[in-house]
Amino acid sequence: MAVSKLSFLVSLLVLSYVAEAQLGQLGASRRKFGAQSRCRIDRLNALRPSRRTESEAGVTEYYDESEDQLECAGVSVLRARIEPNGLYLPSYSNSPSLVYVLRGRAVLGAVIPGCPETFQDLQQESEESYRGERGRREEYGSQQFRDEHQRIHHIRQGDVIAVPAGVPRWCYNDGETPVEVIVVIDVKNNANQLDPTLRHFMLAGRQQESSGRYRRGEGEQVGSGNILSGFDADLLAEAIGVNQETVRKLQSRNDERGEIVRVESQLRILRPSRTEEREESGERGYRRESKERGERWEDKVVTSGNGFDEAICSMKMKENIAEPMKADVYKPNGGRITFLNSQKLPILKYIQMSANRGVLHRNAILAPHWNINAHAIVYVTSGRARMQVVSNEGQRAFDGELHRGQLIVVPQNFAVVVQSRSEGFSWISFQTNDNAMNTPIVGKTSALRGMPVDVLVNAYRGLSREEARRVKFNRGQEMTIFPSQGSRREYE
Amino acid sequence: MAVSKLSFLVSLLVLSYVAEAQLGQLGASRRKFGAQSRCRIDRLNALRPSRRTESEAGVTEYYDESEDQLECAGVSVLRARIEPNGLYLPSYSNSPSLVYVLRGRAVLGAVIPGCPETFQDLQQESEESYRGERGRREEYGSQQFRDEHQRIHHIRQGDVIAVPAGVPRWCYNDGETPVEVIVVIDVKNNANQLDPTLRHFMLAGRQQESSGRYRRGEGEQVGSGNILSGFDADLLAEAIGVNQETVRKLQSRNDERGEIVRVESQLRILRPSRTEEREESGERGYRRESKERGERWEDKVVTSGNGFDEAICSMKMKENIAEPMKADVYKPNGGRITFLNSQKLPILKYIQMSANRGVLHRNAILAPHWNINAHAIVYVTSGRARMQVVSNEGQRAFDGELHRGQLIVVPQNFAVVVQSRSEGFSWISFQTNDNAMNTPIVGKTSALRGMPVDVLVNAYRGLSREEARRVKFNRGQEMTIFPSQGSRREYE
Amino acid sequence: MAVSKLSFLVSLLVLSYVAEAQLGQLGASRRKFGAQSRCRIDRLNALRPSRRTESEAGVTEYYDESEDQLECAGVSVLRARIEPNGLYLPSYSNSPSLVYVLRGRAVLGAVIPGCPETFQDLQQESEESYRGERGRREEYGSQQFRDEHQRIHHIRQGDVIAVPAGVPRWCYNDGETPVEVIVVIDVKNNANQLDPTLRHFMLAGRQQESSGRYRRGEGEQVGSGNILSGFDADLLAEAIGVNQETVRKLQSRNDERGEIVRVESQLRILRPSRTEEREESGERGYRRESKERGERWEDKVVTSGNGFDEAICSMKMKENIAEPMKADVYKPNGGRITFLNSQKLPILKYIQMSANRGVLHRNAILAPHWNINAHAIVYVTSGRARMQVVSNEGQRAFDGELHRGQLIVVPQNFAVVVQSRSEGFSWISFQTNDNAMNTPIVGKTSALRGMPVDVLVNAYRGLSREEARRVKFNRGQEMTIFPSQGSRREYE
Repeated sequence: MAVSKLSFLVSLLVLSYVAEAQLGQLGASRRKFGAQSRCRIDRLNALRPSRRTESEAGVTEYYDESEDQLECAGVSVLRARIEPNGLYLPSYSNSPSLVYVLRGRAVLGAVIPGCPETFQDLQQESEESYRGERGRREEYGSQQFRDEHQRIHHIRQGDVIAVPAGVPRWCYNDGETPVEVIVVIDVKNNANQLDPTLRHFMLAGRQQESSGRYRRGEGEQVGSGNILSGFDADLLAEAIGVNQETVRKLQSRNDERGEIVRVESQLRILRPSRTEEREESGERGYRRESKERGERWEDKVVTSGNGFDEAICSMKMKENIAEPMKADVYKPNGGRITFLNSQKLPILKYIQMSANRGVLHRNAILAPHWNINAHAIVYVTSGRARMQVVSNEGQRAFDGELHRGQLIVVPQNFAVVVQSRSEGFSWISFQTNDNAMNTPIVGKTSALRGMPVDVLVNAYRGLSREEARRVKFNRGQEMTIFPSQGSRREYE
Repeated sequence: MAVSKLSFLVSLLVLSYVAEAQLGQLGASRRKFGAQSRCRIDRLNALRPSRRTESEAGVTEYYDESEDQLECAGVSVLRARIEPNGLYLPSYSNSPSLVYVLRGRAVLGAVIPGCPETFQDLQQESEESYRGERGRREEYGSQQFRDEHQRIHHIRQGDVIAVPAGVPRWCYNDGETPVEVIVVIDVKNNANQLDPTLRHFMLAGRQQESSGRYRRGEGEQVGSGNILSGFDADLLAEAIGVNQETVRKLQSRNDERGEIVRVESQLRILRPSRTEEREESGERGYRRESKERGERWEDKVVTSGNGFDEAICSMKMKENIAEPMKADVYKPNGGRITFLNSQKLPILKYIQMSANRGVLHRNAILAPHWNINAHAIVYVTSGRARMQVVSNEGQRAFDGELHRGQLIVVPQNFAVVVQSRSEGFSWISFQTNDNAMNTPIVGKTSALRGMPVDVLVNAYRGLSREEARRVKFNRGQEMTIFPSQGSRREYE
Repeated sequence: MAVSKLSFLVSLLVLSYVAEAQLGQLGASRRKFGAQSRCRIDRLNALRPSRRTESEAGVTEYYDESEDQLECAGVSVLRARIEPNGLYLPSYSNSPSLVYVLRGRAVLGAVIPGCPETFQDLQQESEESYRGERGRREEYGSQQFRDEHQRIHHIRQGDVIAVPAGVPRWCYNDGETPVEVIVVIDVKNNANQLDPTLRHFMLAGRQQESSGRYRRGEGEQVGSGNILSGFDADLLAEAIGVNQETVRKLQSRNDERGEIVRVESQLRILRPSRTEEREESGERGYRRESKERGERWEDKVVTSGNGFDEAICSMKMKENIAEPMKADVYKPNGGRITFLNSQKLPILKYIQMSANRGVLHRNAILAPHWNINAHAIVYVTSGRARMQVVSNEGQRAFDGELHRGQLIVVPQNFAVVVQSRSEGFSWISFQTNDNAMNTPIVGKTSALRGMPVDVLVNAYRGLSREEARRVKFNRGQEMTIFPSQGSRREYE
């Protein structure tokens, strides 16, 4: 949604590699589904969720996928709230997605195909830790029980998490406040070879009926079962090697809890404590630790010897972009922006998306600019701002005030300007390119700055050479964010 | 259609490279044609060919391209039989394809643009070999005749051959039994910039009218001529530098033999004898040699000195995946699977497809799984099996028995399980991604194994911790193929 | 539009790299918009512009984007004429384009996002040069005025210029004759995430109403404003840091000059003189120099120290392909062809297009061939020729005479032959692949040459072995261009 010199240096790092051998990559390998007709984006609206599904321990809200701007951008958007001790059931979808944590803390697991179960409990001695709820020692067959599973991630407010298509993930709120996330699913991504609509595959539970003014296909999503429920029980029992009763539980045909369920006691997961995690700036010791009451799971990250799986299996899936210290653009009186592209988080190259997080102080202006190679899906995280979006016809496609919780698409190449109101403004923007680039119209490294004064003088009828210089240079070294007029000199 | 640790190591080899610099490649650069509407894949059927074209020395059968599942997967499928001494005429199509040889042996030629004619006859001394059928010494002008042409390939049962879009190929059955092939053409591949339908360009002969319940556009394919027939005879004669009579033969306007013709005597092709070929495991000396009766064509593979054309011109186009020794997954009582992806056969990277060949012994189960990044087009080569396919709604999209000669699409992300009948089951599966990946639901490196026991306990209502452990671990180290229950212990 | 050994060596250079790691690139990552229905390309027509916009100092003519062949190829085409001293106003579009300069010389500026203003005036001493038209010393604030802007390019007849999507460019005719360009915009390119139609974003001026038989959406393009005109004047004034009056001039609401305006005196641009430019063969000293009358702008190309931006910011954007010395294929009596692909001009990898320029002498034949991996959009630059295009049905999709100024699409895989008339024939062809390849049907390295004689004998009914040899070898070492029959021996 904005540009910075810093982000460009990063971009250029990518580009310099790319320039050597595979420049075609850049803008050229993203989307597959054609627009059947012209994008109807002459009039954009600030969107709110139109459909809502209540679950036992949370709520999922969907934005209307058939809204013109979302259809043009080729994305599906949802917002979910997971209550404390709530578990978002394992599921996957047909397109890659970016998740942004609006608030709270949680544990996230994603099962990458073929990757080893590197979180293993190898201890034999600390038998106490294996005692179940009823106090009896738990064994599996003749062998003492040991659990093992794939890597899990601690996520928290400000994290962006990349989830490839077809990869199942679950999420558990181990904090004391609700977790809220916003998720943008890129249904026109090349990774999706099905139709350009969100298809959600549940591994457990079953989908509840949703309420709201929007319901596609009349009840189509009403009570979808999980994928196991579609198999014949006998066959599934034989395949898994368990009895029919267990299979009936797996098929969850009568489970009415929805996709976010309440964990009865507390989820016991093998994992490093948060304090063991690599220190992240701005993160204080986390008092959730004390709650774990001396339960000590040994954390052994086991990697296979061949080194092959390390590249993908240990690939970083998340990055925090809300911490002020990570800002790429920073103006003391104006605000800040943090960009996240595939150079910072390489998995984004895989899913061909990127994100940025911005904060504008009171009355600050986000420089007028356009996105060169991506749509931007902008979600307002706090405050208020006036936004204007201009089409190729020179028409105002949007001119309005944005509030917290609203969503808007800024289409590729459309010009946009934002001015925050007195309470300031902050957003998270998702882009449909792993290395989204934009061009500011004024300020440093802008379109107008890049042209000779004499071109401006002749391009704009009646513009004097002096005026042209002001247009080019009045913003001086400022770029991207312009602090409010109060802190600046008067214009001539 | 199935997953294995081995194949994953291979996949990871690819991925580890990819992870460094070009991860975006993976899922992100394949298909271009959008689904106009939602994929209608709620009900899948086992398909048989719907249209048939008889030729002088063979038969071509077409699956109905407008079937919902084929349209969704974006592929066109055909099966051809070439009688002994039959020649499949040179032709090319607008999309890349994978060919699998169901039975027989043949010689295949593909003309790669710009590649040198590396099979050259340079002998001056063995004049005998140049004597034609009528015994007279054949000369060309004042110069003794020497033929030269591009590399040719010996193909045989179990070979997968990759053919890029726009590359003409011919095929000659030099064996004593019919050759049968099944061909999957990826019409939604990015390499096809025309419309998402198969367009077949013949270089010789002319297409015969086909019979069958399906005929698109009413007679559209009736009697299409070859591309030379569309040119003006005078202009073509001048361009080729031959007379009108020769041109009329090239245009083949009255040729009723169809696309597979009978070679009168025996095709004389400059080529290494099969015994000279690089030894392939499982291949015994081939008695066809004796038939060549002392005809000795000198085989000189001439490469230009610059080394540039070696990369593409000498690229391997085929790989055998039917030999048991090549199995990636092998279970003595269960069966085996051989994967073929772009790591094993780099040309697949170019055409963005892959394949696997599987054999299940009696009553064995192919683990329930889903394809992450590709559709699978499954053709049954022998035996019978029960297959179930489950959609994102948790509905059974297919539940039936598959027989030899049937074809079915397993859509991306849909869950599938297969259990062979008493006679066993074998298949060839074509995938719409050069590095197709899937996730088994149970067994080693599966989705359920990758999640903590406590997640299962809470995700599946009523599941005890003990049951959850059984679900995770009852399959032990088994993956992909589960031998029949008879050879296993009873479940608790 | 034609193939050469030379071009193939170049292609192979690319391919040999590609073969190692990223072959999939090649044919596989280009286009995104599906054909809604089958391409209607059974009947092709030679096209002329259907719509015309007059500007103060030039004319823009548009080919009808909804013509079947252009829609199938996914391109939009326009031709522009800029009068001497005319300035094509800065604008950008939603898709990459290739520009070919039909005649004249000009200065072109393209503003690449994030690139530094490397053309800087650092001189303090030569104060004379900063004097404005009215003779007074021009200063900006307390600081003496210095202009700076991004790199500019001198372009001339025969240049191909690559312009990425979303990158604004302007063009000034500093010569004494009109400049004419033809522009092909690849609207189905993956870089365009909007709809598959040309969207033109003006940074200055406003679009004039066009006349002609074709007008899409009834008046849709009538008087579109520039993108600044869509913003609120107050907000824009604050963002740019100028007053309302200046903003009104920028918004250009009443500017009726159109997109090509007349520069009053002469455009003063900081730039190296043409004689300082790297010598290009065939370019004589350019008398425009003398016109600059001693005005000396110091040219300092400043690069930042990090080296990152050099890769993209100093990337070559243009290449001349009209100079006879640059020919890749040359036949003294036949003509010549110059290919331009991403190996010669790496930015083409980024925009996934390529071009070739051909000249046929009287009655020469361009070998029958087909384009393997791209559509060709052919524009006739001079002379006349007969062209035949043949579809997959073997039907003649086009058979007619082409004149200067006509445009035709040769669809991917369709066979084509061209014979120039007595006045000769020359063309510029744009391809929708950065490494377009084709296969000639006869001649050296052709499809027929690549197959064994015996395959031809049997493929073409009644063809004798002797005839087959003539078909294969009569063209000898000739490839691509066949001189007229007069200069050749008679055929047997």
